[in-house]
Amino acid sequence: MLEETLKRAIGGSDSPLASASRYVMGWEDEHGRAAAAGGKRIRPALCLFAAESLGGRVEDAIPGAVAVELVHNFSLVHDEIQDHDLERHSRPTTWARFGEGQAINVGDYLYTRAVRALTDGPGDVGRRMRALAILHEAIGQMIEGQWQDLEFESRDSVQPHEYLAMVARKTGALLGAPLEMGSVLAGIPPEQSAQLGEWGRAVGLAFQIQDDFLGIWGDPDETGKSNRGDIMRKKKTLPIVFGLADAGARDVISTAYARPALAPDDADRVVAALDRCGAARACAEEAHRHAANADRLLRTFELGPRQAEQFRAIASYIIDRRA
Amino acid sequence: MLEETLKRAIGGSDSPLASASRYVMGWEDEHGRAAAAGGKRIRPALCLFAAESLGGRVEDAIPGAVAVELVHNFSLVHDEIQDHDLERHSRPTTWARFGEGQAINVGDYLYTRAVRALTDGPGDVGRRMRALAILHEAIGQMIEGQWQDLEFESRDSVQPHEYLAMVARKTGALLGAPLEMGSVLAGIPPEQSAQLGEWGRAVGLAFQIQDDFLGIWGDPDETGKSNRGDIMRKKKTLPIVFGLADAGARDVISTAYARPALAPDDADRVVAALDRCGAARACAEEAHRHAANADRLLRTFELGPRQAEQFRAIASYIIDRRA
Repeated sequence: MLEETLKRAIGGSDSPLASASRYVMGWEDEHGRAAAAGGKRIRPALCLFAAESLGGRVEDAIPGAVAVELVHNFSLVHDEIQDHDLERHSRPTTWARFGEGQAINVGDYLYTRAVRALTDGPGDVGRRMRALAILHEAIGQMIEGQWQDLEFESRDSVQPHEYLAMVARKTGALLGAPLEMGSVLAGIPPEQSAQLGEWGRAVGLAFQIQDDFLGIWGDPDETGKSNRGDIMRKKKTLPIVFGLADAGARDVISTAYARPALAPDDADRVVAALDRCGAARACAEEAHRHAANADRLLRTFELGPRQAEQFRAIASYIIDRRA
Repeated sequence: MLEETLKRAIGGSDSPLASASRYVMGWEDEHGRAAAAGGKRIRPALCLFAAESLGGRVEDAIPGAVAVELVHNFSLVHDEIQDHDLERHSRPTTWARFGEGQAINVGDYLYTRAVRALTDGPGDVGRRMRALAILHEAIGQMIEGQWQDLEFESRDSVQPHEYLAMVARKTGALLGAPLEMGSVLAGIPPEQSAQLGEWGRAVGLAFQIQDDFLGIWGDPDETGKSNRGDIMRKKKTLPIVFGLADAGARDVISTAYARPALAPDDADRVVAALDRCGAARACAEEAHRHAANADRLLRTFELGPRQAEQFRAIASYIIDRRA
């Protein structure tokens, strides 16, 4: 049902922007043929779950679920340009396929369609407007986080607390927002909605840290991507940030990242240095800390045992994945 | 009053994105110092005028005026990246100052602030939601137009009717929208709002054609920019599109545009060819046709003589400018 509503939200089948958007969403391959390769749709699932778990009607949350997934995809399209990423999930990124200029347009177009999902309804106009405001608070934070992420690239060192504050904005905000939006759209009282949002942001932080961990220590057979890619692209993910705070590892990382392009040997040396300085454990502990924070928040909610179990299962699905 | 509301809409003085946004809006110079170099604010003026002229309260239209001006600036920031423009109004463009990646973020941020102006109010929520939908219909068209404009760059020839359909989307839509938004926000009946929008789109089309004309035959002392710039950057503006439809001019243009970079002599040869084939007159006639269309539409509105005079004065201000 969600996929069908997402497809309708993209609109205009004859427009090249709609076609490019279907490519982004995974419904079309590089030759314009039908495909089914979409993302995990975690954010819309959170939006629908928020409505349902607190006793609202799941249908009321659909415009929010559609909007947040389209915003997530708009942000991916612009991020990939900024990061010069050539591939995602084994397909050329949007800019690699359509050029940078048109990829900017595709991201902007997905953003317009996200807003349209909430302006066009259905459902109570006051609730939809509130959901739009919540979504835009999160988009604003996400863009602030993205600004910082790019800014960190040109720095010699980044403190772990700076990195975590960036990730809270860049990733956490858009995982908290769908929970707030879903509950607001379903008519749940504002205090409960805000609590859900806080829980989602903690889960989001743990999720991103786990993502950073898997980017270096994940099993390529399970993640579907190289566990040297982040380092080869000189990303400053949390393990690297921890490494830069260690005198020995810093020298190895700085030397490797100062090269025009890293050789596989350089990447191996960086991983060895990270292993030596305990960055893997520090990273795992940080993820655990935020997962525990999410769980602590959960215990302050007024939930029945079955509901609490559902929330825990979702947190676990998002955080404890290996891919 | 509008400038103050725009400044509040940007928000957070300590955020680098807010600071970059102030640069875009003309309130800060390259060194972060206060400046007063903003644009003409035509779109918000249209929004406020629509409310006032039809007997509504101008205050009700302010969120729409703010939103449309921020959207206009978001589109300029992304356009400049796509067109590789280094300067606007004698200042470095946003990407030239902050880099392409961050300029994408600045445009996205301005877009979020535009939506926030309408989600946060004040005013009736139903009217604000309707204004958001109208604005997003226009943004969608604007991006479709921008996609076509980029696509035309790689083509050997573009038909005048294709070019005009592109401009109606890229420029016309965001000049029609503020009139519709302003009247909707002020509680004017929908039919009258839609008529106003149609008038605005006709004025917008005439405006863009005049802009294309001035890009080649304008007086640099009045326009403040070179009248060879569009050609040097190989733009396919309407005079060029007319030229490409003429066998003689087409050869001159194609030869010049095939060079890696045009010399001033090449640009002079292109202008001479355009003069010979009557492109200047064709362009002026096309602008006149759309201005006359706007005037014809105006006569179908139920307006008092003073109101009609105001509408005509605005059309004339927008279209008959020399700069």
